[in-house]
Amino acid sequence: MLRQTVQHLEIQTRGRGFYDFTGQLRDALSKSGLKTGVATLHLQHTSASLLIQENADPEVQRDLERLFSRLAPDGDPIFRHTAEGEDDMPAHVRTALTTVNLSIPFVRGELALGTWQGIYLWEHRHHPHRRYVALHLLGE
Amino acid sequence: MLRQTVQHLEIQTRGRGFYDFTGQLRDALSKSGLKTGVATLHLQHTSASLLIQENADPEVQRDLERLFSRLAPDGDPIFRHTAEGEDDMPAHVRTALTTVNLSIPFVRGELALGTWQGIYLWEHRHHPHRRYVALHLLGE
Amino acid sequence: MLRQTVQHLEIQTRGRGFYDFTGQLRDALSKSGLKTGVATLHLQHTSASLLIQENADPEVQRDLERLFSRLAPDGDPIFRHTAEGEDDMPAHVRTALTTVNLSIPFVRGELALGTWQGIYLWEHRHHPHRRYVALHLLGE
Repeated sequence: MLRQTVQHLEIQTRGRGFYDFTGQLRDALSKSGLKTGVATLHLQHTSASLLIQENADPEVQRDLERLFSRLAPDGDPIFRHTAEGEDDMPAHVRTALTTVNLSIPFVRGELALGTWQGIYLWEHRHHPHRRYVALHLLGE
Repeated sequence: MLRQTVQHLEIQTRGRGFYDFTGQLRDALSKSGLKTGVATLHLQHTSASLLIQENADPEVQRDLERLFSRLAPDGDPIFRHTAEGEDDMPAHVRTALTTVNLSIPFVRGELALGTWQGIYLWEHRHHPHRRYVALHLLGE
Repeated sequence: MLRQTVQHLEIQTRGRGFYDFTGQLRDALSKSGLKTGVATLHLQHTSASLLIQENADPEVQRDLERLFSRLAPDGDPIFRHTAEGEDDMPAHVRTALTTVNLSIPFVRGELALGTWQGIYLWEHRHHPHRRYVALHLLGE
C-alpha cells in the first residue's frame, strides 16, 4: 500500500563548501519505515545547491570550487546585483549551473546510490547559513 | 488515498528571457484539490530550461543572462550546428547547463518553495516560442 | 490503483560521448504495464550524466562536447585530483554542471517527451564503462 510523508531537513553551514547530509537522509528514510519508493528533495534557497558527487577524495570538492570560481568569480565586474556582497551573484550562478532538486529511488530501505555517491548541500555564500530541504518520501 | 493527475501547461514567450509561471502552477495545484504530495514538471523542449531562481531583484536575471552569454556566446565559432541561427547552439548549451525537470513537494496545498524562489521558464531563443510543460501531480 | 516498480538499466559505453537509451526506457515502461504516471531515473555514477537533448542532428552532440571541453579541459592545471587521469576531474565537473536525475511523466503508455527530445547517458570518461541507472516507475 503506497503512502507518503513530507518533512524538512535542516542543514547548518559554516560558509562556502560541501556538506554531506547523506546520513541525515538515511535516518529520515529509516524512520519512515518505507522500504521501496522514491525520495524527492527540494532545497528552498537560491544561493546553494543540492549535488550528488564523489565522497572519497576531498580534493574533488576543492577542484569543483576552483572550477566554478573560474566560471563565475566573486566580484566579477559582469555582475550588477551586488548589494549583498561579491559572492551573492556567483552564488545564484552556481545554483543555476547545478540544481536544487533531487529524486532518488530506494529499495529494501536503502537509497539507490552508487558506491562513490554522496549527497551534498553545496553552500555558495561565504557566511554561515541555515538551509532547509523539503523531503518527500513516497513508497511502501 | 493517493491519486494523480497529468496535464500540460502552455507558456508563450516573447524571446530570450525569464518567464515566471509560479502562479500558473499554483492554479493547477489548487484545481487538482490535492493538499500534500509532489509536483513533477518536464519541459518538452531542448532550447529552453526550467529554473528556480530569485524572484525579488530583476537584475539577478540580467546577470544570469550576461554570465551564460559569456559561457556560450551567440555565434561562437566553436559551433558547427548553426543552420537555425546564431542562438540555436547556445540555447542547447544553456539547456544542458541547467535542466528541463523539476520535482517540488507540496504541503497543505502550497508548493514547498523558499521565500525568494520563483519557478521560471528560461527561454534561450531570440524569437518568441510557445512552450509546453508536462505537469504530473501526485498526492492526496 | 497506483503501483510502483524499481529496476536497473545497464548501459555499456565505448568512451566519451552520447548514448541514447530512450528505447530501453520505453521498453521498461511498456513491460511494466503502467499507462499514466512518472518515471524517475537516477544514474549511479559521478563521472557521467543523464541528459535530455536534441536527437536530430548529431552535430549538436559534438558541439556540446566542444563547449564543455572548453569549460573544463582535460588536463586543466587547475585540477589536483588527477590520479585517475586527465579526464577524471573534467568528468566530475561535467556531471556537476548537468545532472544524474531525471523525472519524466508518462501518459497513455508514452513518455511525455517533446518531438526532438532523446534521453542520453553522457559518458565523460575516455575509457569504456558499464553504467547503471536506477529506474522507478509509479503509476496506474
